[in-house]
Amino acid sequence: MRISEVGRQAGVPVATVKYYLREGLVPPGRATSPNQAQYDDTHVERVRLVRALTEVGGLGLATVSRVLAVIDRPEKSRLDVLATAQCALLGTEPADVEEAQAEPPATRARDWAQRRGWRVHPRDPVLDTLDSAWAACDTAGIGLDETRMDAYADAAERIAEVDVASVPAEPEAAARQVVLGTVLVDPVLTALRRLAQQHVAVSHSVAEDA
Amino acid sequence: MRISEVGRQAGVPVATVKYYLREGLVPPGRATSPNQAQYDDTHVERVRLVRALTEVGGLGLATVSRVLAVIDRPEKSRLDVLATAQCALLGTEPADVEEAQAEPPATRARDWAQRRGWRVHPRDPVLDTLDSAWAACDTAGIGLDETRMDAYADAAERIAEVDVASVPAEPEAAARQVVLGTVLVDPVLTALRRLAQQHVAVSHSVAEDA
Repeated sequence: MRISEVGRQAGVPVATVKYYLREGLVPPGRATSPNQAQYDDTHVERVRLVRALTEVGGLGLATVSRVLAVIDRPEKSRLDVLATAQCALLGTEPADVEEAQAEPPATRARDWAQRRGWRVHPRDPVLDTLDSAWAACDTAGIGLDETRMDAYADAAERIAEVDVASVPAEPEAAARQVVLGTVLVDPVLTALRRLAQQHVAVSHSVAEDA
Repeated sequence: MRISEVGRQAGVPVATVKYYLREGLVPPGRATSPNQAQYDDTHVERVRLVRALTEVGGLGLATVSRVLAVIDRPEKSRLDVLATAQCALLGTEPADVEEAQAEPPATRARDWAQRRGWRVHPRDPVLDTLDSAWAACDTAGIGLDETRMDAYADAAERIAEVDVASVPAEPEAAARQVVLGTVLVDPVLTALRRLAQQHVAVSHSVAEDA
């Protein structure tokens, strides 16, 4: 098909398709003459994916590019896809093996995760994010002690079980599910927490009045 | 103490303290001369709080201002505090009683919440947020059906049980816990979800290899 047809089927302007091509986010078509090329359904699919990552996922083009690199050179296991996709989202490279052997810095989040028996990479930058978020709770006097953190972690494990069960075996679909599922389900979970707070508070209040 | 000492103890530049004072986010000190004022620990505490809400909570100053209004004029019941705090975060006013009697618009999130038996206000704007977030997942082909939504909601209820149990009886402390706990624990939960995904994925992968 022609480039205009790719745009039509993907529901984006032709100028956007050309821009994605120039940026290397969509692979080139098969040249049929010096200034024309043929495209197929894989191009339409890729344009839709880039659009979803930027528009709905709110990712910048540099991050989209890293995410697509995961999809295009898929790792062997579902776990590698997960780790690489998370790093692509965070803008960090996965720690290499040498570095992984070295002693990681001891922090509250690392100590806690280790005591909990969580199989996470000790240099994972998400642990640093958790450290900062935990410290902010302390500063604000939220009273987020390890017991409460463990209770939240129990719930996070249930969420993660659902997440991981939703990841298909096929690498491209897996990368898509991991990246988009991670980014797009966060707002769903935030809304659910607010609603559940009301439900629980009202239920307790009714029980108290009875 | 002098304003410079407030900045030092709160760990922020003096210019930031002055900015918070100008914006009315921190109450004025006790004037000791036409161009000097004395501050105390409550000012240090408030500066830390504003900082936490903006830096970690990611709130804009207008929202911070509404949140502080909830803390400074706490409502009577724990449930009122919860509702008012959530509205302050969302920038909406609580629905009044008249409006609450009218039939709310039927949406996917409302229907789902009702079937689930959640005691939430049918006009709660969080339901609209949930609708949008759910629609975005559909657009991206995440496959978030009602079964998966219910599984996430089970986890959200566990989180909410912990949240509500952490709310103290005293109104000012309750408002503080609800607002800050809601805003500041979100990033903790997001980080926990990422880590739990890894833990679950690694555990499954090890189980598969065995």
